[in-house]
Amino acid sequence: MEDEEGEDKSQEGLNKASKGGLIYCDYLHLDKILNAQELQSEKKGNKIHDEHLFIVTHQAYELWFKQILWELDSVRVIFQNGRVRDERNMLKVVARMHRISMILKLLVEQFSVLETMTALDFFDFRDYLSPASGFQSLQFRLLENKIGVPQSLRVPYNRRHYRDNFKGHENELLLKSEQEPTLLQLVEAWLERTPGLEPEGFNFWGKFEVNVLKSLQEELAMVQAKQESEEKEDLLAELQKQKEILISLFDEKRHEHLLSKGRLCSHLEKDNLITKISVREEPRFQVPFQLLSSLMDIDILMTKWRYNHVCLVHRMIGSKAGTGGSSGYQYLRSTVSDRYKVFVDLFNLSTFLVPRHWIPKMNPTIHKFLYTAEYCDSSYFSSDDSD
Amino acid sequence: MEDEEGEDKSQEGLNKASKGGLIYCDYLHLDKILNAQELQSEKKGNKIHDEHLFIVTHQAYELWFKQILWELDSVRVIFQNGRVRDERNMLKVVARMHRISMILKLLVEQFSVLETMTALDFFDFRDYLSPASGFQSLQFRLLENKIGVPQSLRVPYNRRHYRDNFKGHENELLLKSEQEPTLLQLVEAWLERTPGLEPEGFNFWGKFEVNVLKSLQEELAMVQAKQESEEKEDLLAELQKQKEILISLFDEKRHEHLLSKGRLCSHLEKDNLITKISVREEPRFQVPFQLLSSLMDIDILMTKWRYNHVCLVHRMIGSKAGTGGSSGYQYLRSTVSDRYKVFVDLFNLSTFLVPRHWIPKMNPTIHKFLYTAEYCDSSYFSSDDSD
Amino acid sequence: MEDEEGEDKSQEGLNKASKGGLIYCDYLHLDKILNAQELQSEKKGNKIHDEHLFIVTHQAYELWFKQILWELDSVRVIFQNGRVRDERNMLKVVARMHRISMILKLLVEQFSVLETMTALDFFDFRDYLSPASGFQSLQFRLLENKIGVPQSLRVPYNRRHYRDNFKGHENELLLKSEQEPTLLQLVEAWLERTPGLEPEGFNFWGKFEVNVLKSLQEELAMVQAKQESEEKEDLLAELQKQKEILISLFDEKRHEHLLSKGRLCSHLEKDNLITKISVREEPRFQVPFQLLSSLMDIDILMTKWRYNHVCLVHRMIGSKAGTGGSSGYQYLRSTVSDRYKVFVDLFNLSTFLVPRHWIPKMNPTIHKFLYTAEYCDSSYFSSDDSD
Amino acid sequence: MEDEEGEDKSQEGLNKASKGGLIYCDYLHLDKILNAQELQSEKKGNKIHDEHLFIVTHQAYELWFKQILWELDSVRVIFQNGRVRDERNMLKVVARMHRISMILKLLVEQFSVLETMTALDFFDFRDYLSPASGFQSLQFRLLENKIGVPQSLRVPYNRRHYRDNFKGHENELLLKSEQEPTLLQLVEAWLERTPGLEPEGFNFWGKFEVNVLKSLQEELAMVQAKQESEEKEDLLAELQKQKEILISLFDEKRHEHLLSKGRLCSHLEKDNLITKISVREEPRFQVPFQLLSSLMDIDILMTKWRYNHVCLVHRMIGSKAGTGGSSGYQYLRSTVSDRYKVFVDLFNLSTFLVPRHWIPKMNPTIHKFLYTAEYCDSSYFSSDDSD
Repeated sequence: MEDEEGEDKSQEGLNKASKGGLIYCDYLHLDKILNAQELQSEKKGNKIHDEHLFIVTHQAYELWFKQILWELDSVRVIFQNGRVRDERNMLKVVARMHRISMILKLLVEQFSVLETMTALDFFDFRDYLSPASGFQSLQFRLLENKIGVPQSLRVPYNRRHYRDNFKGHENELLLKSEQEPTLLQLVEAWLERTPGLEPEGFNFWGKFEVNVLKSLQEELAMVQAKQESEEKEDLLAELQKQKEILISLFDEKRHEHLLSKGRLCSHLEKDNLITKISVREEPRFQVPFQLLSSLMDIDILMTKWRYNHVCLVHRMIGSKAGTGGSSGYQYLRSTVSDRYKVFVDLFNLSTFLVPRHWIPKMNPTIHKFLYTAEYCDSSYFSSDDSD
Repeated sequence: MEDEEGEDKSQEGLNKASKGGLIYCDYLHLDKILNAQELQSEKKGNKIHDEHLFIVTHQAYELWFKQILWELDSVRVIFQNGRVRDERNMLKVVARMHRISMILKLLVEQFSVLETMTALDFFDFRDYLSPASGFQSLQFRLLENKIGVPQSLRVPYNRRHYRDNFKGHENELLLKSEQEPTLLQLVEAWLERTPGLEPEGFNFWGKFEVNVLKSLQEELAMVQAKQESEEKEDLLAELQKQKEILISLFDEKRHEHLLSKGRLCSHLEKDNLITKISVREEPRFQVPFQLLSSLMDIDILMTKWRYNHVCLVHRMIGSKAGTGGSSGYQYLRSTVSDRYKVFVDLFNLSTFLVPRHWIPKMNPTIHKFLYTAEYCDSSYFSSDDSD
Repeated sequence: MEDEEGEDKSQEGLNKASKGGLIYCDYLHLDKILNAQELQSEKKGNKIHDEHLFIVTHQAYELWFKQILWELDSVRVIFQNGRVRDERNMLKVVARMHRISMILKLLVEQFSVLETMTALDFFDFRDYLSPASGFQSLQFRLLENKIGVPQSLRVPYNRRHYRDNFKGHENELLLKSEQEPTLLQLVEAWLERTPGLEPEGFNFWGKFEVNVLKSLQEELAMVQAKQESEEKEDLLAELQKQKEILISLFDEKRHEHLLSKGRLCSHLEKDNLITKISVREEPRFQVPFQLLSSLMDIDILMTKWRYNHVCLVHRMIGSKAGTGGSSGYQYLRSTVSDRYKVFVDLFNLSTFLVPRHWIPKMNPTIHKFLYTAEYCDSSYFSSDDSD
Repeated sequence: MEDEEGEDKSQEGLNKASKGGLIYCDYLHLDKILNAQELQSEKKGNKIHDEHLFIVTHQAYELWFKQILWELDSVRVIFQNGRVRDERNMLKVVARMHRISMILKLLVEQFSVLETMTALDFFDFRDYLSPASGFQSLQFRLLENKIGVPQSLRVPYNRRHYRDNFKGHENELLLKSEQEPTLLQLVEAWLERTPGLEPEGFNFWGKFEVNVLKSLQEELAMVQAKQESEEKEDLLAELQKQKEILISLFDEKRHEHLLSKGRLCSHLEKDNLITKISVREEPRFQVPFQLLSSLMDIDILMTKWRYNHVCLVHRMIGSKAGTGGSSGYQYLRSTVSDRYKVFVDLFNLSTFLVPRHWIPKMNPTIHKFLYTAEYCDSSYFSSDDSD
């Protein structure tokens, strides 16, 4: 290593470990990690080479699920303790949600390794696994619950409640995770609380309504001034459709009807969200905007994970039943659905976007607002003690 | 799930696990896997959130290293037992080498997760780890040895032998792996043995030499017929250079001089390899060609892994010493080198490629050769018992 | 560059281009490629920065679609000319199908670039694009047709035939692509023709039927010997189900009923496919097996592409109509379906896999078969003239 | 598409394009894009199938290089016009730098497609290309220059200046790009100007020096209190080394000596950078921190691109000369070096990181600072006109 220098710096070091102390394999508890691969096929006297891959792949998934839960739980604690009002904690939240999405990306990729096993190779040891099944992954169910997959929208598992697959302590953990506030609920509560551009102040929403109605009126006038033609009719129809959608935003009744099937239901939040998305270039809305983006990332990556899983299963077992007894492919296929998208309303918000020049322009005094980060020595500089 | 059918098949199943038997978390020994994350920072009274990511990432690396060794060892056994002469075992070898390359691809990708940790976050717990260090990964060193990184080309570690980092049983395992035949050696031996197109039969190499010399002569004549010009001189110079390279192939002395620094040194193998690459469209050379390709893939992916590792370390600790006491970045940078490319000669073979029409054309009788797969009931249909 | 050598070889070269001749930008026609980005927003006096990304991304997709069609057409020509009987051409087919899957993988990945554009950024120039729309991509429709998406299973586009979006020459090209043999049909025809293990010879299928029936009988006996219990009942039920599935393979009538909705319908092909998958370790079935695998890869990657596209569109426009006037998200979502999986029957084949020891064991004489590659000088050594 | 609703919404649309107006293929100028693939092998009467892939791959690279330059130029304009003081423009800068890194990630991935071509396949048409060569890519050289690869550190190309490969207008564009402020210079200038925690105010740097010296003293006392032992000596040696590095920060002379080979040389910037990295959790330093991170990302991705390129070339041509006449592999290998890392000093900064509790704690009044976004109606709401 003589880059630019001409001296060999690569050997300037000391072997610290030779003098005792913590070493790598103890630090990582490799005695546990690397002795946890027990082939059922071997135990039953017919060792099948590929079962090792099957085990290691699932163990890697579970390791990463643990890491995701570690990040998710820490984020939920920050929200629950109200510490998110300190902008510095909010940055932490955004960074951790981003990390979760990077892990999920890796897990989506990870299927490519298991895909090197053929259906026939799998068939060689598949029977030894029964009735063990991926449906019994506690961590995956906890993950779904803690993000906020609604129990009411879950696809039943062989006509029974998903929790029936779990007993004792595991069942309790799942029940608890259903009862605790989900990430969805925590984000909703935070959105309601975050100082927006309130009616009594700049009154963004009020100005926004005025602008939208005026702009729609102007567009209508422009189109009506055109000569009669098929094109004019189409434009009018389209404008009418757009108007109905936008007016619903300001009309509580229509709005409730339109959105009753969504998950972020209250009128307040919809205002709040559209405000945040519309003025995201404002520095103060940047971090909330990043958070909303990462929530959508996670939703999408979870469905991509489900979809890759479905494809693999289809290839491996066709339409055979799963080792745990489910309908296999059919069951899994039914979970790749917007029912399992927790933040589906964030996607649907794009329906309500309006041209940038319809958005109320803020005046200079608003741009010089006070940025308050509530100082809290103990929680900041030793910020990890409470996570 | 009503795709194309209109019936809900997703619920057609039975909960087998409810009736006892092996379940998921026992099968995967999740008690071990998910209880192996012990934060040193927490132990020392200053829990740092990001240490968990650091541990899980390294554990995932070690899990996958175990899988790679599992595949690599099984391949080496097949070669050692001579079972590779059965073409069906050769297919198994190719499939497993391909799997190793898919795992390595994932591991290269996996750095993107650890990159979500900043230098400052790492600094918060880094001191707690010392003197543990990635240099102490037994499995990674075994992997290098078993593929065939030559001990003589290893960069020393703080001016000492790499094996000094390991004690007792680990040291013995490493020593053993240095003494056993490496993948490189096994592949070489197999290349020598595989029936090629022998001198006494089709005599591919003899015909090849005749063709190459004749074609070079023809090209020379063509260029010399041109009018004097700078271009002509350049063409002549180039042709001369090409001639020297190619003639060295047929001249044992020159050949030895040229290749003395390579790793696949013998004249025989070079012939053999060029033959195989030149006639790879022949069905019988397809599988050997796939094997050679996957060996190059693995070499490249190992260096990409090293390179990603170097980049991460540079970002995390700049030019600080490593936790184990090495020079850190400088040491690692020195290992991203052709010294660590085990199959570097396979890359260099492209230097000797000639135009397709210089390659001896096989005659029809050669194309109808006998394809012998030595039938061996016990090793085939229960083929995994001996891996 | 002094690796291992200590000499600087990096400067040992000549600047050939300085002496005239073809240069890079002319070779690649960069005058066309790099002058094809015309922003509609700029043309209409309101240049929007992000429109450039939108254009470049779509142009990159179209470039790669052209490459996929290039490979696909060459493969179809090989099949159509019957040249696939020469095993060397079959290797070419497999390599090109693999290349298509590598390109599709890149295209699935490519969405991550467009995802850096937010919904609001898109909204800034979206209106300028109308009525242009991705639904008008000729190459994508050609690709679907040439692989073999059945016209009868296509989701209509605004209640009209997809071809109505295209006029003149484009419409003709599409019509032609519907009428020409699809990849699916060519593969089917090849499967029927390839020498298998015919009834009059080894009679694999006959032996297979005997084995399956006998093995099912033995399993039944084993289960019936158990004491009465709920478990026994479950096992019997399962065995019965498995028996029905497998017996349908040998019963033409049941078989037709079961598979009437599939795409590879004939009895013959099903036999043929199961044979090939079951004995894929036999060298002679290796290449067909690789081809079948790559067909499934392509199917899966096409649906992953569709799925990523749907996710992006959902995020960008919510449930707004598309620029071309479609229902947008809802339309696209409906195409992520098994209706568009051309080789869905290959996946379903796994339903019929049986334990390896049920598969008829070949005897040594079979293993020494004659490997005939029909020699054809002109088509081989200048093999590309006819592609 | 009946998800959750039971109604088929996928057909609720209108075919707008049927009524005239802009269509997809005209919008994208597909006439140019898809008619720019001219095979030299075909022109010379020996059409080689794989040349098409070679052309399309390079065209895709050039398309994306154009997009990267588009983003890079827009960022440089923002910096040059001083508009970056408006925090909203800074967000734009960060978003665009992130986009560049996503494109580079794709381009690193893209090599996997070209890797489906074998050395022999390449050899079939390679001679037709000469003397065209990737070294002649104008856009790649512009990219290097505009980011800030220093001319003095460039590896010569066959002992000549890289610009000698280009003539006329291209040569001028390159010269201009060398003379214009590079991204590196613009970032440096911005770092100097951005309001930090100035000496006359909070005086972060002054407090930091005090803390560092005091903390080093305390550590020294702790170690010296230990009993004499080899461990104590090692600790003292290490502490001494750390002290020298850190003291250099506050000693202009030593500092200059240490960093004379770096690229961000001034004392001022080093202070500034360490400040920003140390207090990055402060909301106001978040965006600068994100920018610095994305600069490192781009540096790393550029070297990964170079490294993948080297690997491919090694495989394709071994140690043959390049088509343009360079030494090929040896030349390329020499550019995978820290010489080409523009922001290498940002990596090296980690050398100077100190424990978090050594960092001066800000007091509450500092945390409530005024956030000034200089309001500028025209540049904001129609913010793209000047890019």
